[in-house]
Amino acid sequence: MDYLEKPRESCGIFGIYGHPEGSTLTYFGLYALQHRGQESAGIAVARDNDIIGHKGMGLVPDVFDMPHLEQLKGGSAIGHVRYSTTGSSILVNAQPFVVHHRKKSYAIAHNGNLVNAHILKEELEEAGSIFQTTMDSEIFLHYFVKSLQHGFEGALIETVSRLKGAFSFIMLTSRGEVIGIKDPHGFRPLCLGKLNGHYILASETCALDLVQAELIRELDPGEIVIISEDGIKSIKTEVDANRAFCIFEFIYFARPDSTIYGQNVYQTRKALGRHLAKEAPVHADLVMPFPDSGTYAALGFSQAAGLPFEMAMIRNHYVGRTFIQPTQSMRDFGVRVKLNPVKQLLKGKDIIIIEDSIIRGTTVKTRVKALRKLGVNRIHMRVSGPPHRFPCHYGIDFSTRGELIAAEKSQKELGDILGLDTLYYLSLEGLLEATGIEHPQNNFCKACFDGCYPVKFDKGLSKDCLESN
Amino acid sequence: MDYLEKPRESCGIFGIYGHPEGSTLTYFGLYALQHRGQESAGIAVARDNDIIGHKGMGLVPDVFDMPHLEQLKGGSAIGHVRYSTTGSSILVNAQPFVVHHRKKSYAIAHNGNLVNAHILKEELEEAGSIFQTTMDSEIFLHYFVKSLQHGFEGALIETVSRLKGAFSFIMLTSRGEVIGIKDPHGFRPLCLGKLNGHYILASETCALDLVQAELIRELDPGEIVIISEDGIKSIKTEVDANRAFCIFEFIYFARPDSTIYGQNVYQTRKALGRHLAKEAPVHADLVMPFPDSGTYAALGFSQAAGLPFEMAMIRNHYVGRTFIQPTQSMRDFGVRVKLNPVKQLLKGKDIIIIEDSIIRGTTVKTRVKALRKLGVNRIHMRVSGPPHRFPCHYGIDFSTRGELIAAEKSQKELGDILGLDTLYYLSLEGLLEATGIEHPQNNFCKACFDGCYPVKFDKGLSKDCLESN
Amino acid sequence: MDYLEKPRESCGIFGIYGHPEGSTLTYFGLYALQHRGQESAGIAVARDNDIIGHKGMGLVPDVFDMPHLEQLKGGSAIGHVRYSTTGSSILVNAQPFVVHHRKKSYAIAHNGNLVNAHILKEELEEAGSIFQTTMDSEIFLHYFVKSLQHGFEGALIETVSRLKGAFSFIMLTSRGEVIGIKDPHGFRPLCLGKLNGHYILASETCALDLVQAELIRELDPGEIVIISEDGIKSIKTEVDANRAFCIFEFIYFARPDSTIYGQNVYQTRKALGRHLAKEAPVHADLVMPFPDSGTYAALGFSQAAGLPFEMAMIRNHYVGRTFIQPTQSMRDFGVRVKLNPVKQLLKGKDIIIIEDSIIRGTTVKTRVKALRKLGVNRIHMRVSGPPHRFPCHYGIDFSTRGELIAAEKSQKELGDILGLDTLYYLSLEGLLEATGIEHPQNNFCKACFDGCYPVKFDKGLSKDCLESN
Amino acid sequence: MDYLEKPRESCGIFGIYGHPEGSTLTYFGLYALQHRGQESAGIAVARDNDIIGHKGMGLVPDVFDMPHLEQLKGGSAIGHVRYSTTGSSILVNAQPFVVHHRKKSYAIAHNGNLVNAHILKEELEEAGSIFQTTMDSEIFLHYFVKSLQHGFEGALIETVSRLKGAFSFIMLTSRGEVIGIKDPHGFRPLCLGKLNGHYILASETCALDLVQAELIRELDPGEIVIISEDGIKSIKTEVDANRAFCIFEFIYFARPDSTIYGQNVYQTRKALGRHLAKEAPVHADLVMPFPDSGTYAALGFSQAAGLPFEMAMIRNHYVGRTFIQPTQSMRDFGVRVKLNPVKQLLKGKDIIIIEDSIIRGTTVKTRVKALRKLGVNRIHMRVSGPPHRFPCHYGIDFSTRGELIAAEKSQKELGDILGLDTLYYLSLEGLLEATGIEHPQNNFCKACFDGCYPVKFDKGLSKDCLESN
Repeated sequence: MDYLEKPRESCGIFGIYGHPEGSTLTYFGLYALQHRGQESAGIAVARDNDIIGHKGMGLVPDVFDMPHLEQLKGGSAIGHVRYSTTGSSILVNAQPFVVHHRKKSYAIAHNGNLVNAHILKEELEEAGSIFQTTMDSEIFLHYFVKSLQHGFEGALIETVSRLKGAFSFIMLTSRGEVIGIKDPHGFRPLCLGKLNGHYILASETCALDLVQAELIRELDPGEIVIISEDGIKSIKTEVDANRAFCIFEFIYFARPDSTIYGQNVYQTRKALGRHLAKEAPVHADLVMPFPDSGTYAALGFSQAAGLPFEMAMIRNHYVGRTFIQPTQSMRDFGVRVKLNPVKQLLKGKDIIIIEDSIIRGTTVKTRVKALRKLGVNRIHMRVSGPPHRFPCHYGIDFSTRGELIAAEKSQKELGDILGLDTLYYLSLEGLLEATGIEHPQNNFCKACFDGCYPVKFDKGLSKDCLESN
Repeated sequence: MDYLEKPRESCGIFGIYGHPEGSTLTYFGLYALQHRGQESAGIAVARDNDIIGHKGMGLVPDVFDMPHLEQLKGGSAIGHVRYSTTGSSILVNAQPFVVHHRKKSYAIAHNGNLVNAHILKEELEEAGSIFQTTMDSEIFLHYFVKSLQHGFEGALIETVSRLKGAFSFIMLTSRGEVIGIKDPHGFRPLCLGKLNGHYILASETCALDLVQAELIRELDPGEIVIISEDGIKSIKTEVDANRAFCIFEFIYFARPDSTIYGQNVYQTRKALGRHLAKEAPVHADLVMPFPDSGTYAALGFSQAAGLPFEMAMIRNHYVGRTFIQPTQSMRDFGVRVKLNPVKQLLKGKDIIIIEDSIIRGTTVKTRVKALRKLGVNRIHMRVSGPPHRFPCHYGIDFSTRGELIAAEKSQKELGDILGLDTLYYLSLEGLLEATGIEHPQNNFCKACFDGCYPVKFDKGLSKDCLESN
Repeated sequence: MDYLEKPRESCGIFGIYGHPEGSTLTYFGLYALQHRGQESAGIAVARDNDIIGHKGMGLVPDVFDMPHLEQLKGGSAIGHVRYSTTGSSILVNAQPFVVHHRKKSYAIAHNGNLVNAHILKEELEEAGSIFQTTMDSEIFLHYFVKSLQHGFEGALIETVSRLKGAFSFIMLTSRGEVIGIKDPHGFRPLCLGKLNGHYILASETCALDLVQAELIRELDPGEIVIISEDGIKSIKTEVDANRAFCIFEFIYFARPDSTIYGQNVYQTRKALGRHLAKEAPVHADLVMPFPDSGTYAALGFSQAAGLPFEMAMIRNHYVGRTFIQPTQSMRDFGVRVKLNPVKQLLKGKDIIIIEDSIIRGTTVKTRVKALRKLGVNRIHMRVSGPPHRFPCHYGIDFSTRGELIAAEKSQKELGDILGLDTLYYLSLEGLLEATGIEHPQNNFCKACFDGCYPVKFDKGLSKDCLESN
Repeated sequence: MDYLEKPRESCGIFGIYGHPEGSTLTYFGLYALQHRGQESAGIAVARDNDIIGHKGMGLVPDVFDMPHLEQLKGGSAIGHVRYSTTGSSILVNAQPFVVHHRKKSYAIAHNGNLVNAHILKEELEEAGSIFQTTMDSEIFLHYFVKSLQHGFEGALIETVSRLKGAFSFIMLTSRGEVIGIKDPHGFRPLCLGKLNGHYILASETCALDLVQAELIRELDPGEIVIISEDGIKSIKTEVDANRAFCIFEFIYFARPDSTIYGQNVYQTRKALGRHLAKEAPVHADLVMPFPDSGTYAALGFSQAAGLPFEMAMIRNHYVGRTFIQPTQSMRDFGVRVKLNPVKQLLKGKDIIIIEDSIIRGTTVKTRVKALRKLGVNRIHMRVSGPPHRFPCHYGIDFSTRGELIAAEKSQKELGDILGLDTLYYLSLEGLLEATGIEHPQNNFCKACFDGCYPVKFDKGLSKDCLESN
């Protein structure tokens, strides 16, 4: 099925301080971040010196209805949408995660992945801690509570110092404080906004746009932001000289209308397409994406190459996620139900398809075959990033290396397997340059392309990557 | 709300003869036709000399699950998706409509609207008929059964001769026969396909594509097609010299990957855009649609004008149909939740927006305002059809004339109201020419543009239109 | 399963005239009549010169929630609960049945069974009528509408004259009139009540009790009662000299707190037990029912025989209707899950079990076996009615004769089959006498016991019964 | 509403060792224990060296369907039904409670209430523990894990030694062991059974009956039973000289077909009625319960007094738990919808009503009023236990003392308030004697009657009780 074809983002997080409609605004914030996780959704609210919440499996509007939000009326609120990476796909792993300690309550929402989670957990269990979930958030709170002798801020700083890996956290306390935390490399996006004087934290700016808040700035790597009745306070923890923004946010994850790492995603994707057109030019009758993943790079490619852009595969807008199993006479149904090619446009033509990534290759192969059957002449594919050759340990659900079709193959071999006339990927240099960020070599995590992992991790996980450099 | 902004199609219909997986194929056929009606869905199947069925309110995958389809196993099947035009929005008006008569059963699915329904109903009621629904389908079956003394085919011909208006019917009998009927003017599309020897009838070819059937041909105006164990038989009833294909199917209703009236819809829409670029040229930095309605015309306009095409408003792919009411602090939420403009792309630019139609104008107005707020410089709008000035009496849920914002206004006035720098509509001549059909004047119903209604109707309904010529 | 063991009543009906909370009161009326039908429920309300309604499969509180009742606000309302007898178990056969004719609407709710339904239907179909359901109610309305040339009352009288069999109807018109109709033999109960000046019709008085209405009287056989703004009008149609109250209402169907045919059901059932104790005395340690069917007769038996009454099988109050299939290691689960015997009370004892009827005998057999296993000594069974030997054609879902275990067997043979020490049934004479009604021979239908059917019916159905006398 | 009128039991628990259909048998075990808790249900199963589970709000058949049980296939399983006492009514507090620690998992199900929970929690929190729920079970597992340095058995013994109050636990480990624990006073019932060689633990014997297991014995106070592949091992911890069986299990909670503390509940309740008849005789026309609470005591009273027993208030068997709000014209609806009195039986009569307890008295008052309205002559009430004057701190959800209507009133005053002619309670001596247990003074907790709490508890809670002796 198609959903196995694309890397899955772990999570989207949102928080707002002290707004009378906090839970409703969080609902809409999560709504805008739904592309970052469709498996579960949750909202927690500070009220009456306690934290109450609701979470469930499914999309935001499926999990919450009006009565839920009524029950969650309060001031400060945080929310979470999730696609499982660590932690299996069950309700107990839905977030925000809430605990109680000495008459106070804490809720936490997490985007990322700790590479030392198993070590931390072992250490905690030796000291007698018990775990109810398999989430990194639970580890965070165990450490946080054990560090409270250093005071609230001290506990936050102490806890962050113990965590290794990619993490953007939003925390809520029963007193209504909202805290934002970004790991020292800044892997995952997290930004600060404001709505009529109420501070907001969100994974992407598109969530600010929907609730009509203004963007103040993105959090710095290693920054802890505490929002309370005293206003906003920023604590800078020790950071790494090299930042490690996840470059795949630009290529695929983030919504095109968001701004991350200071750049608009839509325009960056167009730049990827333009670079691709320069690196691997080819003549054809039209340039087209497989909607919607390659659309913006395809626009950039088309404009740079001076070739017509066409939406030559039509998306069924009513495709839901649950399907009746198709009949035996309906081969390749999973592919066709989402996208139907426009025969009259494609027959006898030479075409260039722009993709943003090829993970396992199965869907691409089936679609190319379907296009051949329609009578398309030459089929070229251009991919708006380098080949995925290494798994991600920082929160993205890539397949293991064995399932990455590009891991051990040349572009030529891969093109043959996929049934393409030509196949070219954007070079890593081209990718970095196209982001428009200065000194991109020192700013991005691109481990899935080159195996250079910015944060070392346990040997148990490292087999695939050492060879890479 | 946005859904009031666009004209709503009445229905999509599908039928298949004698296939062991008839109900499942019908399910997928309806799935592909979901854009023609999202209010209710139903499937009826001939089995054991009876007809059984299931229908419900909602989208196809919401109404049917695997157990339903298991229960509906059988040979011939027909299905229906509906947006109510006549008949209020309740389950009793969902189709297919099933009746029993003298140990036989009949099911019927309808797309269109009879203009003499009230006269026929009165006549039937005087003769003692009772009605359980407000659907035209019920009238059809009353006449059909009363005409059975003329034999099965005779009854069909007799019944069709009594009906006035737009109608494409698919009927199923308890013996498993599947019958397709198109009105003498051919208002609504209906095509014939084949899958491994099993005939299929469907509103649009995209339904054939999904089940991998081949298109044989579209039904002719006034044609009755009877599919039975004797194969296929075509009966041609008296037809009008002038055909009256609904031209709005090309502009808006049909899926772009469908072929109707012999033309591919995608290419036709691009042609509308090209004509529009010629009729009303203007210089700008970019051409953009409000997704997804104007996308294809925008591509045509962009290519003809040599201006860059951009998807500058980003669609939230997870927008469902039920929402929590937004908070009071979130003005214009209904507009923003679906589409978010990309600021960086639009600020300070001159833009051309391509729309396919403006019905009430409310959404356009709000969106233009939002774009102004972002700092867009000049905003031009081009509409890929003439102004809607008259209501439709043939199955499209246009507002009454009073609600059609273009009914009494000039393009200039309208542009001012909508906050546009310039506004131009495609001319009726341009529209007809762009369809690529020969003698378009004699082939299309374009009453919603010019008030020339191809089939006369009762005075009670006609106030708006006589003035038109 | 147990539910196949007991005869199933067809329906319960309720109607109220012109009460501002009509739909809510009907909801509660149906609630009190739920024992008469658990398969589907429906309410129809007259409003704005139309009739609107809601119905669904399941129990009253499952079918209706507060929003439904809000939508059904209006004045006059009627309702229906149903266990299917004629008409298969699908939503289309749920009632009230609503039709439209010449700008008027009619809704009807029915309890009973027409024996000439197929003849009437044939006649109507020859005249061109089509049917959407298999319900008698649809036939009624076809005739009623065709008879409207005789005026409203004339049409009612004319229609009733055509129907043969058992029928209690409540009808609602779009003008808000509520009409009650009882067949000329008075098979099924229907009573008239009043709540603060608003007339009510209901199958049983327990529905009046729940809404705190007072009982005025039961309808007479052949009576038509029209409730309108002119008050109440009673029309007496021709009746049969012999009444035919369904005697099984006393034995099993009606709720013990109801009054039907002028007698309280609880007290009548106790009288059955007393007669049984006289007709078939036996000594034992205790008298017990299988809850809840034989409870009241067991009380009567116990008091007359001077033997202790015990509730020696405990009912699980949380038994719902849907179950997980038990494991293979759990034999006889269907029996035990509802009733668990109290070992300490039963071991080594001689017991008398009072039943109200034995249809197929399967459950009785299993329960007796379970009691034997516990170490009960002698097991006597006494049944508070005669053996069921003939199917019912007037609305009760008895098995066909082949499935009636008593059809061809002596009491001795039957006792042996069921594993009992002794088995005696109440005699028909004893039953009639115990009802306390004068001239019971001329007042009751007792066809299920003696095969004397008060209303003749079509040969196709009559094989079983002619032999009976 | 009525549900506030009766004390609510906290929980029912069930566990089975190593049975291939463990989850299904647990489902049925919970089904039989549903009367002990209707708010939530859960099952946890040991599989693949882990524990998986499912829980939800509602009745057992609402929470579990076939697919759930399929997913829970495994060997050992435990389950829980709950009515909240401590811990508020939300899903996070549903049990079994599952935690993970050092690659092992533990699940626990609890019936009872710890009186030192807040002290233990404070102690744990000081040591850095965090809590996700408000359940005693979570405290148990924190201590258990912290004590594992003493070995598995040592940890169990150590943990039990820290807990004060009433507790019956069933624990499951990821290795499939099932452990039963009863507190040193034996407050709550817990019995051991066997099904084809597989040991079972259950709150009451009725759960054994349903799955057709045999009762081996009840656990002793202070006993820990460990069931593993090595068979069964019993550990006796230190116990109090005085046992403290909850006497209210006999009066109200336990199912009448269960055996607890060595006595059959049905027969014990009859004995209460017999003692009551001797202690407070009165002449009347009939003896009746308010179903179903006083039924068995009423049978005993009736037989001892030689007065007829009648079920004079009829229960609606279809009463569910969710209701439409009745109309304003329907006073006292909450009372009438469950029970309808049989007028003909009651009018002009002198009656004795047997109740098992009166908590707030509201329902009794309303019902007595309704009986007066029907014309009942004299109304006597006899209660089969002493007056409830003190709250329970061991797991029963009694109201606080202020809500116990009998707390400060004489029987005479109370009878007047309730509108009764006479009111008598069974004496504490009579109650103890009727249980048939030797030395009952040293075996029962009867604190709700006399305020003598067998286990001391924190001052914060003790205001009400010290005065009692």
